[in-house]
Amino acid sequence: MKYAITAALAALLLAGSVSAQTPPPAAPAAQPAVIEDFKPSSLNQPGQEYPQVNSQGYARFRITAPDAKAVKVSLGLGGRGGTTLTQGADGVWTGTTEGPMDEGFHYYHLTVDGGIFNDPGAKNFYGSIRWESGIEIPAHDADFYALKDVPHGNVQQIMFPSPSTNTQRRAFVYTPPGYHKDSATRYPVLYLQHGWGEDETAWSNQGHANLIMDNLIAEGKTKPFIIVMTYGMTNEVKMGGLRNFDIKPFQTVMIDELIPYVDSHFRTLSDQPNRAMAGLSMGGFETKLITFANLDKFAYIGLLSGGTISVEDADKTPGFRDKIKLAFVGFGSRELEGGRAGPPGGPPVDPRANAEALKASGFNSVFYVSPNTAHEFQSWRRSLREMAPLLFQN
Amino acid sequence: MKYAITAALAALLLAGSVSAQTPPPAAPAAQPAVIEDFKPSSLNQPGQEYPQVNSQGYARFRITAPDAKAVKVSLGLGGRGGTTLTQGADGVWTGTTEGPMDEGFHYYHLTVDGGIFNDPGAKNFYGSIRWESGIEIPAHDADFYALKDVPHGNVQQIMFPSPSTNTQRRAFVYTPPGYHKDSATRYPVLYLQHGWGEDETAWSNQGHANLIMDNLIAEGKTKPFIIVMTYGMTNEVKMGGLRNFDIKPFQTVMIDELIPYVDSHFRTLSDQPNRAMAGLSMGGFETKLITFANLDKFAYIGLLSGGTISVEDADKTPGFRDKIKLAFVGFGSRELEGGRAGPPGGPPVDPRANAEALKASGFNSVFYVSPNTAHEFQSWRRSLREMAPLLFQN
Repeated sequence: MKYAITAALAALLLAGSVSAQTPPPAAPAAQPAVIEDFKPSSLNQPGQEYPQVNSQGYARFRITAPDAKAVKVSLGLGGRGGTTLTQGADGVWTGTTEGPMDEGFHYYHLTVDGGIFNDPGAKNFYGSIRWESGIEIPAHDADFYALKDVPHGNVQQIMFPSPSTNTQRRAFVYTPPGYHKDSATRYPVLYLQHGWGEDETAWSNQGHANLIMDNLIAEGKTKPFIIVMTYGMTNEVKMGGLRNFDIKPFQTVMIDELIPYVDSHFRTLSDQPNRAMAGLSMGGFETKLITFANLDKFAYIGLLSGGTISVEDADKTPGFRDKIKLAFVGFGSRELEGGRAGPPGGPPVDPRANAEALKASGFNSVFYVSPNTAHEFQSWRRSLREMAPLLFQN
Repeated sequence: MKYAITAALAALLLAGSVSAQTPPPAAPAAQPAVIEDFKPSSLNQPGQEYPQVNSQGYARFRITAPDAKAVKVSLGLGGRGGTTLTQGADGVWTGTTEGPMDEGFHYYHLTVDGGIFNDPGAKNFYGSIRWESGIEIPAHDADFYALKDVPHGNVQQIMFPSPSTNTQRRAFVYTPPGYHKDSATRYPVLYLQHGWGEDETAWSNQGHANLIMDNLIAEGKTKPFIIVMTYGMTNEVKMGGLRNFDIKPFQTVMIDELIPYVDSHFRTLSDQPNRAMAGLSMGGFETKLITFANLDKFAYIGLLSGGTISVEDADKTPGFRDKIKLAFVGFGSRELEGGRAGPPGGPPVDPRANAEALKASGFNSVFYVSPNTAHEFQSWRRSLREMAPLLFQN
């Protein structure tokens, strides 16, 4: 079975992917005066002083390359091609973003004499089909994904056999605190997918999904559940591959291989009411296709900057209103500005209006907007924080 | 309690650490003709064609940096400063090592116009207190750490509270295949430490400890056991920090915090006969200090390119001969050439003679030499393969 993908959905998703690469809309011409309280980014490699961030969200870079002709950083403002560093008398290149960045996590890279390299000061995170440098702009609400002295769940790497792809495939499995101690309890499972160009490491490394859960559970705000994260790029790893997206290979891995493996190797509740699927960007796209085609397997759906669910979607899918207990849709506020969530050149898509209409029609539809963030991980961290307490409540 | 560290041991370890940074002895002037069967390294980022390796062990690099003045690779032969790339008409820099490299894993980096960067084609591995590029020279015996269609154990990240350091610390725990299915079985535990400048990711990422165990277990060659890997650099993260090494902070984390956490969160056999400790390089140094001071907690000791155990060591430590069931010492063959295992400028140390004398004195001493490898992960992968079947046999 091959699933048809509507042009609007594909375009919506592609628009999302593109916006991940582009900065938020141009900032006002007059930037606030830079406060000199810069500190090393929390994602720096051990002992590295740069890159730095300040309390306003500016980022400052320092790169040693004494004989280079030009060094640029891909992060910056408003389509002006990032931040150009300047070389000091000591041969070292430095520069500060022209304005504040959005709170949260950002991928970036350097261009040194025309070559693309990572910043040696920063840790790397898998995005854009490569390991890129990452920087964390301190967020006012960073506490919900902070590493605290609370009971911690584990994130474990599993290798499961995949006859359909003739490989041993990797997934990461978050088990909540207490999973190892009480060998009688069984847990619901959320299958949580990354976006285009990312992989199964993203939700733990960039997303802090484990810490978000640990903290929610410690505060009694969510049921403890298992999260399973695997690689969703079963299509050819190429730019533009989404235009020929075929869900079937990944659906086979997910439905026929991964879920049975997890249910036989972990203490899961394996019935439909105890299984959810969610994903960000392309992962939301995959989530919608897979859950709509497998209503007997999933009861909760989450699309994070990755599509929308309309009344029409629900009504043209027999059984949807009975079997699905929640449709959670989240976006970053900047994704909804100026119709950016709509397909370029196509009919406008308004995910909020869709969610509200679905809710008005009597369905448990929840729409969340992350303030002042774009198509980026701060939106998705917050979306997970909002969605988790709503799962497995029926 | 503060442990005195003998100058000879410290020097031995430092010699080891230094040799990790330096290439093997100069190759013969006449190199074999290069066979043009280059393929992408198995450690490349997805879709990346370079770096490449050939069947003889040559490595070939290709770096895009059209406006650069000079690009070098730190890998190469015989102290001649690595491999200098040359720029082609297309602006791309290419070059091949002057001779074959040792089989197995190597760290490396680029120097681009005087700045240190990673190769955008290769995945990164934590070593030298930074994430470095990695390349894999195909080994004739690579099968023992290959990802095969056998039952796989899991590698899970745990975060355990550490009051002594006022942090939540990370460890990785390998649980053998079957651990999740049979909730009655309890397992012995090997605490396995990385080397200087590395971290708790090294034994899984570079070392393939999980795959080595999966394969040994599938062939019935070793008892299944749990492996725990944590960060051993509790001292200040600085070059040369080893000269002022104090084992106490790490020993407190290991003995008072990590072991109790593991024993209460995993199905371990927690008595002394079912606990082992081993480590590579600095990790071997730590292993010797901690196990000798805690004979009531460990029954098996492994030092991998990280020290030696002499008859004198055994005899000056009351209880050692009764309580310790195995002293495993491994080295790469190149570490033993020309007295390199001995401390520079100090009295010679011969770990093989020490091991043989200890064995002749009636103790279960095993000495292993990895053929044609140096102070590098291929030696340690092989040492783990040799050591694992000998553990927990008493």
